[in-house]
Order: sequence, then structure tokens, then C-alpha cells
Amino acid sequence: MKIAVLGTGKVGRVLAARLAGLGHDVVIGTRDPGRTMGRTEPDDTGALPYAQWQAEHPDVRLLAFPDAGAHAEVVVNATRGAVSLDALNAVGADNLGGKVVLDLALPLDFSDGMPPTLTVANTDSLGEQVQCAFPNARVVKSLTSVFCEVMVDPGRIPGEHSIFLAGNDDVAKKTVQGILDQFGWPAESILDLGDITGARAVEMYSRLFFTLAEMFGSFELNINVIPGSH
Amino acid sequence: MKIAVLGTGKVGRVLAARLAGLGHDVVIGTRDPGRTMGRTEPDDTGALPYAQWQAEHPDVRLLAFPDAGAHAEVVVNATRGAVSLDALNAVGADNLGGKVVLDLALPLDFSDGMPPTLTVANTDSLGEQVQCAFPNARVVKSLTSVFCEVMVDPGRIPGEHSIFLAGNDDVAKKTVQGILDQFGWPAESILDLGDITGARAVEMYSRLFFTLAEMFGSFELNINVIPGSH
Repeated sequence: MKIAVLGTGKVGRVLAARLAGLGHDVVIGTRDPGRTMGRTEPDDTGALPYAQWQAEHPDVRLLAFPDAGAHAEVVVNATRGAVSLDALNAVGADNLGGKVVLDLALPLDFSDGMPPTLTVANTDSLGEQVQCAFPNARVVKSLTSVFCEVMVDPGRIPGEHSIFLAGNDDVAKKTVQGILDQFGWPAESILDLGDITGARAVEMYSRLFFTLAEMFGSFELNINVIPGSH
Repeated sequence: MKIAVLGTGKVGRVLAARLAGLGHDVVIGTRDPGRTMGRTEPDDTGALPYAQWQAEHPDVRLLAFPDAGAHAEVVVNATRGAVSLDALNAVGADNLGGKVVLDLALPLDFSDGMPPTLTVANTDSLGEQVQCAFPNARVVKSLTSVFCEVMVDPGRIPGEHSIFLAGNDDVAKKTVQGILDQFGWPAESILDLGDITGARAVEMYSRLFFTLAEMFGSFELNINVIPGSH
């Protein structure tokens, strides 16, 4: 498939590299490719300058947001939650219409340190805001509940563990399930939380996730959902 | 131990019966014992009139909130979150000072149906509000992440699964861990989320819990937290 990954940070790079490795035609979208390529310092997460990563991944092309969107059948939102709506606006509603938007972003606010609070929660969610802003896009919230390395390689966590998806469009969910399957998620691990309001569940779970990550000293963790026997 | 369970609904009854069965000296606290005993209709959760339950549990005594608090070494808040602070105020700060308060309540708002929203979330939590309102109480948030039948009998969920606790007082946490142990929670299943701000993590997780409960058609479910191998 033709896939545009929005965001040049760690999450975007990990997703783009894995999707390209699976044989997809992958572009990364950014606001200003020249500026992204010109950076010589690590970003605020400590990731290497993008150009270094790009040199090692010639199968992935860097494009401006609108060009990346025009290329894609599936758009993966791997931007920071605080800038996701801006980034998607830069891609353009026309380039998102009818397309599957796999929304990985969390609306995190680290201004008070770890664990982060959310900029939207409880009665709304970033997933819903994206769907509301782009009513013709087919938004699926998924994979947000795990660290990016685990998103694309669930075998990093031992045993059975769960991943969630939520969205209004069943066909779009099937497309995302296909990508999860390629990443290595077993069908029985994928739990469908229903329509896009299910995004609240996974976004609000992030508080527990980050609290546990602090406790374990690692973001590499997940949960397995177990129904009772009664 | 001398334990006061606040709340005469299903959660309070299940906790009180189990604690009494374990040999604890258990009272249930309510605003007006005469009125509670006089009810002849099921409550809004469908639970039998309290007097019927009371007749089958002669080892548990019903007392007014202040008397229940005065009796107790450990106070279990099993009231609805919306009335928890009122109920604890009725118990009285003097009756809570120095005592372990095991807070089971979730600040749920069902006014828009299932899944419920929270009346407090993200930058605060009910557990923190209780600790803030009663600074001399030793509040521990725990067990909220599972249905009451599972709280007291974790074997209802197959395999390994996790339970959380959060609170500022390590000795109070040890007391609660002792109760969890008596309920059947293995030590390795009990995850300490740190101070009382950890209450946000379990309270916000409730959105995922109730979404999953709708999906499975049952509240009998739990999650197992699995650290990665990296």
C-alpha cells in the first residue's frame, strides 16, 4: 500500500522503517523537508538528526505534508498530539478525504513532567477531534497503548498481550487490522473498542501506562486483557 | 482487624461479607441506619433491599457513619464516588485521623449512559481529593480497577492478572497489601503505583475497563501487566 507517515520523530521513523521493510511504498510527511533535512542536532527526545536516519533508509522518501497526503492510501499520524491537528490541516482535508487515517498520537502535556497529563480527556479525545475536524477521513485509533518499538514488533513483550482499535468505519478498521497482522499482532490480541469514542479509553489509559513505565524504568510493557470465566 | 465499610450498595456488601468471612470485626456505615433498614425496594443497581441482606449476614453490624468510623482501624470507602466526600465528612475527620482509608470509589458520571465519564480526572482524582480533604487519614487507592466480586476473589479471572495500589503512607499500603493477600491476590500481582497521585492512573483506566465490559457483556475482566524483555 501507499502509506504516508506524518512526523519525523522516533515514532514516525520506527513506523516508516517497519512499513517499508514490509514492502509498502512509504513516504514521511513533514512541514518543511528542507528544514527537516538541515537539522544537525538531536531532537528533544534524543533522536539522531533526521538526515542521518534518512541516509540509512533510502526506501523512504521525505515529502511536504500535502505531497505526502496526496501520495497515500493510508495516512499514519505519528506526530505529537499537541501538533496533530495542525499537521493534518497542513496535509489538507482534500488529501485525507476517503482515506484511512491511523491515529497513533497521544495528547500529552509534559509541562509538569512525568507522568504526563492529557490536553483533552474524559468527555473528548484527540481521536474524536481528528475525526470531527476531517469528517471525510476514516479515522482509526490504534497502537497508542504501547511504545513504538512494540507497536511494530509485539514479540518484544513476552506472552499474550492486547492491542486496541476504535473507529467509525469498519472497512478502515479491516485495513488497520491488516497492518497489525503484518506487524505480528495475533488476531485474538486485537480488541475492537467500537466507534471513535473508544479513543478516550486508550488515551486515558496512557496515565496508567506512563505510571507503570516510570515504575519499571522502561516503556516496553503492555497489558493483556483477560475476560472472566463467569 | 476492626473494619468499617462505608456504603450499603453491592460493593459495600460484597466487601463486608468477605472481610467478615475472613474473621475481621466488620461494621457497615450508612447515613441513617433506620432508613437503610426500612427500604423495601431494590436499589438502582437492582440489589436486594438492605434488610434482606442484613438478615443473612448477622456477623456484620449496620451503624451510622460516625459510629462506624469510631469502631474502625481500617475504613473502606465503598460509596459511590459522587457522594464519597459527603460520606467521609459524615464519618468525621476525627474518626479518620491516623486510620487507613482504603478508597475503592470511582468518580463515575453515568448521566450520558455507558461507558461513564469521570467527575474528576487528568489533573486530579477522587483519591487525591479524599487525601486532601482528610490530611490525617492514610488513604490508599486500590481494587478500583476490578468489579467487586473480583476484588475479593481474584480467582474468578483465569491466569495471572494485576492489581494496583497508590498512597502516600507505606505502612498503610502494607496494611492494604495484607488485606489483598487475604482476598487471594498473589504478592507478584500487586503493583505499587507510588503516591496518591497514582489514583489518577487507576481512575482514568476505568474508561477502558467500562468500554471492555460493554464489549464482553460482563464486568468480570481484568488486565495483566507484562514488562518487556528488553
